Amino acid sequence: MMQKLAAEGLGTALLLIGVVGSGIMGETLAGGNTAIALLANAIATGCMLYVIITVLGPVSGAHFNPAVTLAFLLRREIAPGLAFGYVAMQIVGGILGVWATHLMFDLNILQTSTTAHRTGIAQWWAELVATFGLLFVIFGGLRSRPDAVPTLVALYITGAYWFTASTSFANPAVTIARSFTDTFAGILPAHAPMFIVMQIAGVGVAALVLPRLFAIPTPDEIRRDQN
Amino acid sequence: MMQKLAAEGLGTALLLIGVVGSGIMGETLAGGNTAIALLANAIATGCMLYVIITVLGPVSGAHFNPAVTLAFLLRREIAPGLAFGYVAMQIVGGILGVWATHLMFDLNILQTSTTAHRTGIAQWWAELVATFGLLFVIFGGLRSRPDAVPTLVALYITGAYWFTASTSFANPAVTIARSFTDTFAGILPAHAPMFIVMQIAGVGVAALVLPRLFAIPTPDEIRRDQN
Amino acid sequence: MMQKLAAEGLGTALLLIGVVGSGIMGETLAGGNTAIALLANAIATGCMLYVIITVLGPVSGAHFNPAVTLAFLLRREIAPGLAFGYVAMQIVGGILGVWATHLMFDLNILQTSTTAHRTGIAQWWAELVATFGLLFVIFGGLRSRPDAVPTLVALYITGAYWFTASTSFANPAVTIARSFTDTFAGILPAHAPMFIVMQIAGVGVAALVLPRLFAIPTPDEIRRDQN
Amino acid sequence: MMQKLAAEGLGTALLLIGVVGSGIMGETLAGGNTAIALLANAIATGCMLYVIITVLGPVSGAHFNPAVTLAFLLRREIAPGLAFGYVAMQIVGGILGVWATHLMFDLNILQTSTTAHRTGIAQWWAELVATFGLLFVIFGGLRSRPDAVPTLVALYITGAYWFTASTSFANPAVTIARSFTDTFAGILPAHAPMFIVMQIAGVGVAALVLPRLFAIPTPDEIRRDQN
Repeated sequence: MMQKLAAEGLGTALLLIGVVGSGIMGETLAGGNTAIALLANAIATGCMLYVIITVLGPVSGAHFNPAVTLAFLLRREIAPGLAFGYVAMQIVGGILGVWATHLMFDLNILQTSTTAHRTGIAQWWAELVATFGLLFVIFGGLRSRPDAVPTLVALYITGAYWFTASTSFANPAVTIARSFTDTFAGILPAHAPMFIVMQIAGVGVAALVLPRLFAIPTPDEIRRDQN
Repeated sequence: MMQKLAAEGLGTALLLIGVVGSGIMGETLAGGNTAIALLANAIATGCMLYVIITVLGPVSGAHFNPAVTLAFLLRREIAPGLAFGYVAMQIVGGILGVWATHLMFDLNILQTSTTAHRTGIAQWWAELVATFGLLFVIFGGLRSRPDAVPTLVALYITGAYWFTASTSFANPAVTIARSFTDTFAGILPAHAPMFIVMQIAGVGVAALVLPRLFAIPTPDEIRRDQN
Repeated sequence: MMQKLAAEGLGTALLLIGVVGSGIMGETLAGGNTAIALLANAIATGCMLYVIITVLGPVSGAHFNPAVTLAFLLRREIAPGLAFGYVAMQIVGGILGVWATHLMFDLNILQTSTTAHRTGIAQWWAELVATFGLLFVIFGGLRSRPDAVPTLVALYITGAYWFTASTSFANPAVTIARSFTDTFAGILPAHAPMFIVMQIAGVGVAALVLPRLFAIPTPDEIRRDQN
Repeated sequence: MMQKLAAEGLGTALLLIGVVGSGIMGETLAGGNTAIALLANAIATGCMLYVIITVLGPVSGAHFNPAVTLAFLLRREIAPGLAFGYVAMQIVGGILGVWATHLMFDLNILQTSTTAHRTGIAQWWAELVATFGLLFVIFGGLRSRPDAVPTLVALYITGAYWFTASTSFANPAVTIARSFTDTFAGILPAHAPMFIVMQIAGVGVAALVLPRLFAIPTPDEIRRDQN
C-alpha cells in the first residue's frame, strides 16, 4: 500500500519533470521557433511516459492521472479509499516535480503561470477529445495487448501534443501542477478548473462508449453484478 | 458486426484528427519552416497509426483505408457486404474526424481545400508507389511477423511522408476527407479523384507482385480454389 | 532462389527510395537549414530499414548491402553463387530505386552527382567505422536477440547519419546508386570507389574483431572445420 | 573475463562516438539553432544506447558507466576486482571513442574543453536527479521487464537531454571523456569533478530509495545475509 502510494507520487513527479523541464529547455534553445520547442517537449514527454509506466506499472498500475484512477474506480477495479490516496499523491507528486524542475533550471521555486491562451470552447473540446483518446488507448490496449500499454500511452501523448489544440493535458494532476510554473508548459490557474471539468467529461464519454466498442461490461453492469 | 463498423469509423476519424490536427498545429507554430511542420505531421501521424491499429486491430482488423479493404476483398478474406460497410464507415468517419479537428482548432467546420499543388504525373506516380508500399508492408508483415504490423504501418507512413513526393496519402478515405479542410493537409477536391485512381492502381500492382514475392496464393488462385 | 533475388532487388530499391526521396523532400522544404533536412533524411531512412528488413528478412535474409553479403560469405553462411546474385541484384535494384525516386519528384531520370565534399581521410575513416559498426550490430544482434535485428539496424543507421562524419553510407550498392543522383544524398562518382574500399576494409576489421568479442568461430576456423 | 572487459571498453567508446559525433554534426549543420543540434544529439545518443546495450548486454551486462558498476557493486552483484576493471575500461574506452570521433571529423585528436557553463548548484542538482533516474530505470526495469532495459535506458536518456538542466551526463566515464573534446558536448575539465561527485551522490540516493520502492533487499540487507 505504501509502495503503491509512493510509486504514484514519484511517477507523477517524474512526469512533471519530463513535461516542464523539456518545455523550459526547448523554449530556451529554440530561439523563438515554438514548433521545435514543442517537438522536443513532445518527444521528451513520450520518453518519460514509456519509462515510468514500464518501471512502476507492476508496483501501482502506473496511473499518474486522477482521470485514469477515476475510470478504474467507475469500473470497481480500485477501492475508493486507495483511489483517494492515489489522487492525493498524484497532485502532491506533480507539484513537487514542478518544484524539483525549477531547482534544476535555477528558477524561483514558487511560481504561478501567466500563460493566458489555454482557454475557450475549442481548447475545452480538445481536452475532452484528448482525455477520451487516452482512456480509449489504455482500456483498448489492456484488452488487445497489455504489454504494449506503455508504448501506446507514450506514442498517443507524443502525437496528441500536435493533433489536439490544447497540446493534450488530459490529466487533472498535471493541470494543477502546470499552473505552478510560469514557463513554456504553464497554464493560468484561473483556466485550470475548466480543463479539469472537460477531462472528467472525457472520462464520462469513455465510460459510455468504450464498453460497447470493446464488448466489455459497462460500469453499470459491473455494479449490478456485484449487488 | 456493429462493433466492426463502429471501429472502422472511429479509427478513421482518429486517423484524420491525427493527420489534420498535427498539420494545423505544425504549420501554425513552425513560422514558415515547412520542413518542421511536416516532421511534426509525420511523427504525429505515425503515433496515431500505431495506436489505432494496436487497439482496434482485434475488433475490426484495423483497415481504416478502402484500398486495404479492397485488397482483402480481392483475396476473399472479407465478405463483399462487410467490405462495402467498411468503406462507407471509413469515408464517413474520416470526414467526421476532419470536422472534429476544425472544432478543436476553432476553425469553420465546413471547408474545402484550395491547396492546388497535389497534382501532375509525378505526384500520381508517387501515390501508386506509396499505396503499393503500404500493401507490401501489410501483407508482408502479416506473413513474417503479425505482431509487428502496427509498428510497420506507423513507421512506413512516417517515412513515406518524406520519401514519396505526394507525402503518401495512400488511402481513398483519407484523400476524400482531406479535401474537406483548407489547412496544411488539404487537397483541392478536383485533384482527389486522380489520387484515388492511382491508389487503386497500386492495389492492382500489389495484387500481381506480392503473391509471387511472398509465395502466397494469388487472388486468381484463391478464386479458382473456392470454385 | 528467384524470390530471394527479387527480394534483394526490391528491398534495395525501396531503401534508395527512402534515402534519396527523403533527402530531396528534406532539402526542398528545410529552406537552407541542413540539420532539419538531415534529421528528416535520417528518420525516414531508419523507418524504411525497419520495414524492409522485417518484411523481407524471412524471404532473403534482408542483406540489401554487398558488405553484409560479403561478411556472410566469409563465414560460409551463403553460397558464392548466390552471393554473387545478391550483389548484382542489390546494385541493379539500388539504381532502379534512384530512378523511381526521380520520377516521383519530377526530376530528370538520368543524373550523376556533383556533390564533391564526400572525400578525404576523415570521411574514409568514418566509412570504415560506420561499416564496422553495422556488422557489429548485425552479428552481435543475431547472437543476442535475433528478433531485434530490424530495430537494431534501423536505429544504428538513424544515429550514424549524425555520429559518423560521412553520414554513414556503409553499403557499396547504396554508394553506387547515390552517385546516380544530383540531389541531397548524392556522391560524386569519382569519390565512390574509395568509399567502397573503406567499406570492404570495415568488413575485414569486423571479421577479425567480432568472432573474438562474441566468442563465435572466426572465418578461418569455419574454413578449417569444413575441410 | 577478457571479453567482458573488451565489451565495456568498446561499448563506452561507441557511446562517446555517438554523443560527441552527433554533437559536432548537429552544431555544424544547425546554423546556430541549438535546439535542433540538441535534438539530433539526443536522438543519436538514444539510438546508440539501444544498440550497444542490446548487443553487448549478454557479454558484459552493458554497464558502460562507473555509476552503474558502483550500484551493482553495492548490491554485491559484481566482484570488486571485476568492477575495478570495468571502470578502468570505461574510462579508457570513452577517451579513445572521443579521439576516434575527432579523427572522423578531421579535428585535432588532443583537445580539452573550454565549455564553461556546465557548473553551479542547479546543474549539480540536475546531475543528481539524472543519475538517480538512470538507476531507477535500470533497477526498476530489471525487475519489471528485463527485455525492455535497452529501450528504457535509450528513451530515458533521449528525454533527459531535455528535461534535466545539465542534459544528463549521469556517467563519470562519459564526463571524463567529454572533458577531452572542445566541441558541442564538451565540459571544462575543472567542472568535471563536481559532476562526478553529484553522480555518485545519485547512486547513494538510489541505494536508499529503490530497494524500498521495488521491495528488493537493500545493500545493507544483502551484506548482512552474506555474513
